[in-house]
Parts: sequence; structure tokens; C-alpha cells
Amino acid sequence: MASLKTIALDAMGGDHGPEVVVPGAALSLDRQPALRFIFFGQQSRIEAVLQQYPALAIKSRVVHTDLVIAMDEKPSQALRHGKGSSMWLPLEAVKAGDADAAVSAGNTGALMAIAKLVLRPMAGIERPAIAALWPTIKSECIMLDAGANIGASADQLAVYALMGAAMARAVFHIERPLVGLLNVGTEEMKGNEDVKGAHVLLKSADALPLTYKGFIEGDQIGQGIVDVIVTEGFAGNIALKTAEGTARQIGTYLKAAMTSSFASKLGALLASGGFRVLKEKMDPRRVNGGTFLGLNGIAVKSHGGADAFGFASAVDLAYDMADSGLIARLSADISDFHDRPSVAGAGGIPPQSSAGSALGKA
Amino acid sequence: MASLKTIALDAMGGDHGPEVVVPGAALSLDRQPALRFIFFGQQSRIEAVLQQYPALAIKSRVVHTDLVIAMDEKPSQALRHGKGSSMWLPLEAVKAGDADAAVSAGNTGALMAIAKLVLRPMAGIERPAIAALWPTIKSECIMLDAGANIGASADQLAVYALMGAAMARAVFHIERPLVGLLNVGTEEMKGNEDVKGAHVLLKSADALPLTYKGFIEGDQIGQGIVDVIVTEGFAGNIALKTAEGTARQIGTYLKAAMTSSFASKLGALLASGGFRVLKEKMDPRRVNGGTFLGLNGIAVKSHGGADAFGFASAVDLAYDMADSGLIARLSADISDFHDRPSVAGAGGIPPQSSAGSALGKA
Repeated sequence: MASLKTIALDAMGGDHGPEVVVPGAALSLDRQPALRFIFFGQQSRIEAVLQQYPALAIKSRVVHTDLVIAMDEKPSQALRHGKGSSMWLPLEAVKAGDADAAVSAGNTGALMAIAKLVLRPMAGIERPAIAALWPTIKSECIMLDAGANIGASADQLAVYALMGAAMARAVFHIERPLVGLLNVGTEEMKGNEDVKGAHVLLKSADALPLTYKGFIEGDQIGQGIVDVIVTEGFAGNIALKTAEGTARQIGTYLKAAMTSSFASKLGALLASGGFRVLKEKMDPRRVNGGTFLGLNGIAVKSHGGADAFGFASAVDLAYDMADSGLIARLSADISDFHDRPSVAGAGGIPPQSSAGSALGKA
Repeated sequence: MASLKTIALDAMGGDHGPEVVVPGAALSLDRQPALRFIFFGQQSRIEAVLQQYPALAIKSRVVHTDLVIAMDEKPSQALRHGKGSSMWLPLEAVKAGDADAAVSAGNTGALMAIAKLVLRPMAGIERPAIAALWPTIKSECIMLDAGANIGASADQLAVYALMGAAMARAVFHIERPLVGLLNVGTEEMKGNEDVKGAHVLLKSADALPLTYKGFIEGDQIGQGIVDVIVTEGFAGNIALKTAEGTARQIGTYLKAAMTSSFASKLGALLASGGFRVLKEKMDPRRVNGGTFLGLNGIAVKSHGGADAFGFASAVDLAYDMADSGLIARLSADISDFHDRPSVAGAGGIPPQSSAGSALGKA
């Protein structure tokens, strides 16, 4: 049997609170009996839902707090007033070792700020990033940064590549993940200075625990030609949301097309097995959950609007990451990378080079 | 009958040259008999295809040139060596008034650079942008900048809004188009300084010939809640290509799902009318063609890999824009905007404010 993993949940986060968080946890528990939960939030509301899930209730604890961070609160406000909130306490539980991972569907900016303060960035990482799982024709890939930071220097993009590769190793079990850099073209001259600089850094870094595949464009993300896609958070967030919106848009077309005539309706009925497969493939809830990479602990963000099925995907991801020992592995990779002897002109990014500035806080 | 419009075509541009450009023009002519064409490129190759389309041939002229700009040529090289090429001559034909619009499927960067040099930016516009038509659930919207420039200041984003609105008026016949600013969230505090600055400029600009709807996120693009989406070229290019890639990805899932069992296959056959509708909606070729906005003439870029159907969409767009008098209207809008009296604190962007720097070249 897998070793027990305890997930600390912000029961009040997201658009729905305990009415989605509790059923979501129940779904995850069905799939993974080694899960245990701590729910943080309004005890009466949580327990009202929890009593409908007796199998979950016996594996859960509830920690009461009245304090909730609003969806529109600024990160700076959340940092000042959020201590003891349903979002803050799960992260403290992770830090204290009482939980293996924290999951919240609350305010992303606030969660990022609090997670950074409570869990602290890993030695050698200046800017934690949000990594998202992206479905591809082959399976899934990891895209980061999905919106933690606006903009990223060449050095920071190179560190994102390392972080994404560590996650791919932990979650996909690929020893030497393929990494691509998102750009507006695949020619060397394309892109801004940060992207071009990161390209040079990664191209020359043969000793990194990844295989750099060069630039990839937006239309190649879903093709599954790389395991990790690196970009700064503004473009990354827009790419991720645009893909989600496009999938939803096509779903709308599909529904309309299939009900446009009697023959279509009958055909759709006969093909419903195929449609079920398609719907599953297209379902953004299946890959719900961004994870903050680069902190000394696992914190997963679920979409604010996620339903129980979506929230369960975020819990599954938190479990997989905790179970695979991602943090220890990433920490070792960054440390190895940082300790790597400088080889002028080839193999690895010399610690004293420009990349050193992003890694110099070890 | 509509007034005749002559389109100057780079017959050698794109992955296929005359074998796609000529049949594409023939398709457009079928739809719009008021079209006339001038093909620029290798006369023998063009005429070999043209003789298969006698209805097109009698409405076309061929201008021979051996010079072709390669797909991987840098814009600076193209500017130095490209004079007299199949890409350059159509733009000169537009400038000279011999053609109403130019279309090329060639190297985007080269086309942009040459178009800017030959046609010159409009008075009051510092940076021309690439505008793309984006299919939405309701109909279509215009997205700019799709990749002409990396980055844009607040002032430049505000001018993009004006340019996009002018195109929406010309192509969609909407007098006061709805404009949204692409961002990583809809709250005022989100985004980088350029986006926040443009938001302030547009919000206070009641007198502009558009209705500003505020920030929109990537997943809202396809919902058709605005007519124009404004962003800088890096994020815009990635959004556009990501949407294309996602549509193709779902098409692959759909095909696989519909052939996964006998019942699915039979159902798909019965539903084929519906599928045809869907395929049409999803077909990226239908909205092929980016247009360079902000120049003293119409230049449309088709995808390099477009087939005849896709190239015809780009020609259709060039025709619509020429026929609707876009250039004159946009020129008037920018001029009005520029001449608008400064009203401190409200209504319109004062010409002496920071917006003035982007508009100060009139």
C-alpha cells in the first residue's frame, strides 16, 4: 500500500467553498485510499457537507477558522490580514510537517504571496512559478510560468526550465525531460531579448538534467513534442486560458452541430461512446490545478470556478507530487546545478555567468 | 455591381507559390466577380497554373520577376536585397495606385518591413500592427497585435485600440465597436505597467469612436464579448497560435473518438451533416489572413502553409478592406483623435499627455 499522504485543504477557497471542496476530496479519496485530509475553514459549514461523506469523514480533521481571504483581495492585503485564514493555515500545516501538500481554490495572487512567505523559495530559486498540466495529443506536458510573475529574465527562464524538468521527472517519470521555450517563431532571431538569452543559456547547457529542444510556437504546445514548455507568466497565462477558451468554444460548436438535424441527433446518439471519450479528452477539469514550483513545500491552486470533479484533479496532483518526492528531487537538482564546476564556453551554465544572478541566493 | 478592385499578389510567397496562389485567386473570383489580379513572380510557373483557370486568366495580369524573398531571410536582409522581388512589387503597385491591396503568403517579418518602408505608416501611427480575424461563438472578432512588434507601451496599445476599432467598423459594419484589453485577470491591479497604463487611457477616453469594455482574459476571446481585442505582439502571437493548435488538437481527438467503435463510425456517418458544419466552424483556413494595420495602404499576410482555400480567405479579406474604405476611415479617425481638444481629467486622451508621444508624428 502507498504511504499515507495528508492534504491540507482551504475549504473556503473558490467560488463555492466547502460545497465543492468536500465532495472533491471525497472523489480523490475514492481513487487513492492513502489520502488523509485536514479541512480549514468554517467548521459548521464544512461538517454539514462532510456528514454526507462518511468514508471521507473518518479520514478527515476539521480545523475551524472564521477568517477567509476574499477573491478580490490584493496579495499585499492578504499578507497583512490573512494570518490564521483558511488559506494561510494549510500552508503552515505543510511547513510544520503536519501535511504533505496544501490545496486552495482561492485568490491566486494571495495564495502565491502567502505560500512564498510561509514555505519560502528553495535555496537557489529567486522566483517561484506556477506550473500547469497541459493535455497534448500524446499525453500531457507541463507549462510554466502560468502566471505567477509578469516577465522573466533569461536567467529566470533557464531556472524555470530546471524546475519544470524536475516536475516532469517526478510526475511523468521521465529521467531526461524534453524542454521547449515558447516563442513567436522557431528561428533564432525571433523573440525578445529575454527569450533569446534563455535560448543561448539552455542550448549550451549539455550537463543539465534535461534535453533542450529549442523554440516552440503556440500551435505546437498541444502536439506533445516536449514534456516541459517554458515561458514568462503573462504569455503563459494567456496561452493557457486561450486554450481553455478554445476548447469550450469548440464544445459549443459541437453541441450545436450535433443537434442541427434529426440525422445528426440520431448519429450523435449512436456515436455517444465516442463522444464520451472526446468529452473526457477535452475536459479542462481533468487537468485542473496549477502548482507553485520552487518553494520548500507543495502548494496546488485549483481554479476558483472548479466543481468537485475539477477540485479532485487538483487534489490528485497534490498527492502525486507529494508521493513522488518532487521537492527533494528538485532541491537536489538545483543544488547540483548550482555546485556544477564552471566550464568556460561549454557544458552547464557557469555559476559566475549571468545565470548566476538568478541562482546566487543559495 | 460593386466597383472593381485590383489585388496585387506575391505569386511566389508561402510554401507552395503559384500552385496555391493562382487557385486561391480563382476561388475568390468565383465569390467576387469585381476582383482583378496582378500576379508578381516567375511568369512561366504562374502562367502554367493560370491556363487551367481561363475565367481568372482573362481578369489577370502577370508581371515577371526572378527575385524571391526566402522564408528564412531576416527583415534587414529583405530590405537590402528585396527590391524588385515578388513581395516588394505588389506593395509598390498599391503605393502607385495600380492595385487596391497586396496579398503575400511569404516571410512575415520581411513583408512587414517592406510594407512599412514602401507604404509608410499613417500620420499619427508609430507602430503598425498585424490584425487577425478570430472566430467567436457569436461571429468573429479582430485581435491585434498578432506579432508585428514585441512589446507595446500604454500609448501604443491605445493606438492599437483605435486601429482595431477602425477595422471593425470597416469589416463588421459596427459604428462603435466594443474593445477589450487582453490581460491575465480582469481586476484593475493585474498585468504589467503597459497594460495598466493603457487601461487608464482607454477608460477615460469617452470621446473615442469605440466602447472600452476593460480587461478580458484568454478564455474570453472566443466568446465574442468584444469586437476588438488589443494586446502586444508577443502575447498576441502566442494566443493566436495556441488557439489554432488547440482547434487542431481537438480535431484529432474528434476523429479518433468517432472511429473508436462500429457504433461511433455509423453514428458519425449519420451525423455527417452536423460534422460538416462543425468542420467549417473549426476550419482555421476560413479566417486566414492577417492584415497590417496603420499603413497607407492594405497589405494582407496569408499563412505560409495555407492551401488555395486558405489563400482565398486572405484575398477575400483584402477585397473587403479595400471595398470598405478602411484606410480613409482609419486615417480620419486617427486625425480626429489627434485633433481632439485636450479636456483635462476626462473625455479623450489629451494630445499633450503620454499618449501624445505615440501620436505626435502626425
